[in-house]
Amino acid sequence: MAIQKPTLPKGTRDFGPLQMARRNYIFDIIKDTFKLFGYQQLETPSMENLSTLTGKYGDEGDQLLFKILNSGDYLKDVAPSDIEAGAAATLAKVSEKGLRYDLTVPFARYVVMNRNEITYPFKRFQIQPVWRADRPQRGRYREFYQCDADVVGTDSLVCELEILLMIKRVFASLGLKDYAIKLNNRKILTGLAEVIGAAGREGELCVAIDKLDKIGWAKVQEELQQRSFKQEAIGKLSPIIDLLGSNREKLDFLESFLKDSEIGLKGIVELREVLELLNQYGESEDFVDFDVVLARGLSYYTGAIFEVKVNHVSIGSVSGGGRYDNLTGVFGLEGVSGVGFSFGVDRIYDVLEELNLFPTEQLEGTQVLITYFEEEGRNYGLQVLNKLRTAGIASELYPDVVKIKKQFTYADKKQIPFVMVLGSDEINAKQVSLKNLISGQQESMDLSDAIKMIQGQ
Amino acid sequence: MAIQKPTLPKGTRDFGPLQMARRNYIFDIIKDTFKLFGYQQLETPSMENLSTLTGKYGDEGDQLLFKILNSGDYLKDVAPSDIEAGAAATLAKVSEKGLRYDLTVPFARYVVMNRNEITYPFKRFQIQPVWRADRPQRGRYREFYQCDADVVGTDSLVCELEILLMIKRVFASLGLKDYAIKLNNRKILTGLAEVIGAAGREGELCVAIDKLDKIGWAKVQEELQQRSFKQEAIGKLSPIIDLLGSNREKLDFLESFLKDSEIGLKGIVELREVLELLNQYGESEDFVDFDVVLARGLSYYTGAIFEVKVNHVSIGSVSGGGRYDNLTGVFGLEGVSGVGFSFGVDRIYDVLEELNLFPTEQLEGTQVLITYFEEEGRNYGLQVLNKLRTAGIASELYPDVVKIKKQFTYADKKQIPFVMVLGSDEINAKQVSLKNLISGQQESMDLSDAIKMIQGQ
Repeated sequence: MAIQKPTLPKGTRDFGPLQMARRNYIFDIIKDTFKLFGYQQLETPSMENLSTLTGKYGDEGDQLLFKILNSGDYLKDVAPSDIEAGAAATLAKVSEKGLRYDLTVPFARYVVMNRNEITYPFKRFQIQPVWRADRPQRGRYREFYQCDADVVGTDSLVCELEILLMIKRVFASLGLKDYAIKLNNRKILTGLAEVIGAAGREGELCVAIDKLDKIGWAKVQEELQQRSFKQEAIGKLSPIIDLLGSNREKLDFLESFLKDSEIGLKGIVELREVLELLNQYGESEDFVDFDVVLARGLSYYTGAIFEVKVNHVSIGSVSGGGRYDNLTGVFGLEGVSGVGFSFGVDRIYDVLEELNLFPTEQLEGTQVLITYFEEEGRNYGLQVLNKLRTAGIASELYPDVVKIKKQFTYADKKQIPFVMVLGSDEINAKQVSLKNLISGQQESMDLSDAIKMIQGQ
Repeated sequence: MAIQKPTLPKGTRDFGPLQMARRNYIFDIIKDTFKLFGYQQLETPSMENLSTLTGKYGDEGDQLLFKILNSGDYLKDVAPSDIEAGAAATLAKVSEKGLRYDLTVPFARYVVMNRNEITYPFKRFQIQPVWRADRPQRGRYREFYQCDADVVGTDSLVCELEILLMIKRVFASLGLKDYAIKLNNRKILTGLAEVIGAAGREGELCVAIDKLDKIGWAKVQEELQQRSFKQEAIGKLSPIIDLLGSNREKLDFLESFLKDSEIGLKGIVELREVLELLNQYGESEDFVDFDVVLARGLSYYTGAIFEVKVNHVSIGSVSGGGRYDNLTGVFGLEGVSGVGFSFGVDRIYDVLEELNLFPTEQLEGTQVLITYFEEEGRNYGLQVLNKLRTAGIASELYPDVVKIKKQFTYADKKQIPFVMVLGSDEINAKQVSLKNLISGQQESMDLSDAIKMIQGQ
């Protein structure tokens, strides 16, 4: 066979031991939180039929789907003339499956296919990779994990409360303190468009307002003019743009501002209710920031909208979500409403790295390496190893009889905190010599004492 | 959009909450064991370049690779005449990536690409799905998980010992008692071929002998004749086929049988050494069964060969592995030797189900559902919920104000073991009424006592 130097496909990554330990640290905190709140795990196949995926993510999304070549003679239905018809026209003849593009469409498909077996309200979480044939760049990969939780089959705002609480718990567990959960409600945006005399145009309105942080109010006004919003309408928006104060102050102002919009007032009621539930739960609302210009997912969100940003880092939002009233309509099942959100694990990883928040101690891995000088030491070491593992201590015996320095280098590189040295003194006294590689301290002792020391008792 | 009834691609599966809990139960036991033994986790991308995958699994394997259509205009290099050239000839023009077919080739690629950063001996485990375009059938899927552990960069037989110990620990943790780890050594098979006068033909020999269980010795002899093994050679094998006794007795017999084969005797020495290490570790060798006709992976295994079968179930082997001396030669890096093995998680799942060995208690999920009659109860429930979660108890508040019966049905379907009922008595007394849905007992108490009861204190 010809020798080749292997490479990775563009936009994909290996995760070695250190990265895996850090990723598992994040995943475990998220999973524990989801489970503490009663969410149940779902996994769907990596492949879906193209008929399930296509048309769900817009034209651009369809382009970015990874398609799988049909097995066997994939050209059997293709005529030479199809080549001239082009790639798009020929696609259905060579591919019928694609890779998962997100976790929402597979979840919707699962709900439709299992609608009679599911226990509602159905609280599910799903942590799996997705694939997008995007142009790779810094922080953007072709394979990355999504981490979603949704509850469907209830309109209760207790679900919105729980999303706020789950985000808070995950961030607290990760040591992330300086962040804000921005909260808005689609109905308020709809109401805003109504009261400024641009009913039904909240989408356009939000696209422009979304740029406020980047380009400022003056430029946003220009853009609204270009989108043929009337000057009077734009003028009415000014007090909204400058809105300051506590959540309650903002809500009071908007309640009066939206007094002529039924739907807008409904949004205010919902938002107040979420804050009231937070209060009943015994939580302060300090970590929640009502942001009337927060607009995302306008094509599907119908109620609450969430977005989480960590302050003082270069990275965009690390979590977001919202309430929808029609998860499964595309598959012919109407009326499945719910609310969900997602953690961006790759971004959270980068944030923790940037802020130096990963724990400094070894996250997972061997606690003790047993080292020795000759075969007699190895045999004694095997007995020690058995006892360490029976005590639940992750431990290794260096497998080869080599110089002790080499064995210590191995411990060092693997960041193993303790090394046991088994020389003839230890073997004769039936003891072990335990060295703490962090403090540098070393002493001989009975194995039972060493076990206590390693377990930090 | 046209309404469609969604389906799953052939040979793929959704894993709902119960299946996920059971799969996680198996995965967690395996992962804990790998970590206890000092193995570190690796994850590689789902996609690999076809140049990495092709030619590594034989012609049949190449056929079974799922190939990914190039992004964008995948037909841009295809001429109408290519269609007549056929699918195989055109493949390189429309696809350059494929889905992972196993975990070994990606591991080899990783070792080659990171050979200077890796700490040797490198003990890695990897638990990820693989994809094969096989014809789906009962127990055979197009997407399934593999669960591999390998150590490379050492020839120490301590690694073989540890594989036996890891298998034993996993099976003990799963409650699987009636199984056997079959152990053989490739060198013994090579030696057997030598001493019967068929040097170099152990592959053919083993293909025939492998059928012993199914077709019996008489038919195996016929097959060996058809493969033009000499009658004398076949006759010499008879005592091997009938070999009975303890591991030591079999080894003693073979040591004399193989006395003229240097490599065969080396195999005996290695096998004895593994059993001796087991003895030094303080383990009986009862769970290990030296099986001189065990032959698998003959194209790459060079030393120990493992296979694990559960007795009295219809399912084939659930784990297997062996020692190799050239993991990365196909990528131009020679001399990387190691030993590895794999758990078949789907099969283990089926075995546990067949033997009714999954724990009967709920494996993961909500411990307590808080139920109530009206809004006042819900608000009190939110305070209770906060305290339950702070105590680390997975708990839920039914999100909607509905009839209590409906709330109990929810608890029942989700197999939630405890339900709290918050009526006006409980609210006034600042207590909770805790019902154990398994025993049926219900009583009112302080929340702190309820927490202790739920935690089983």
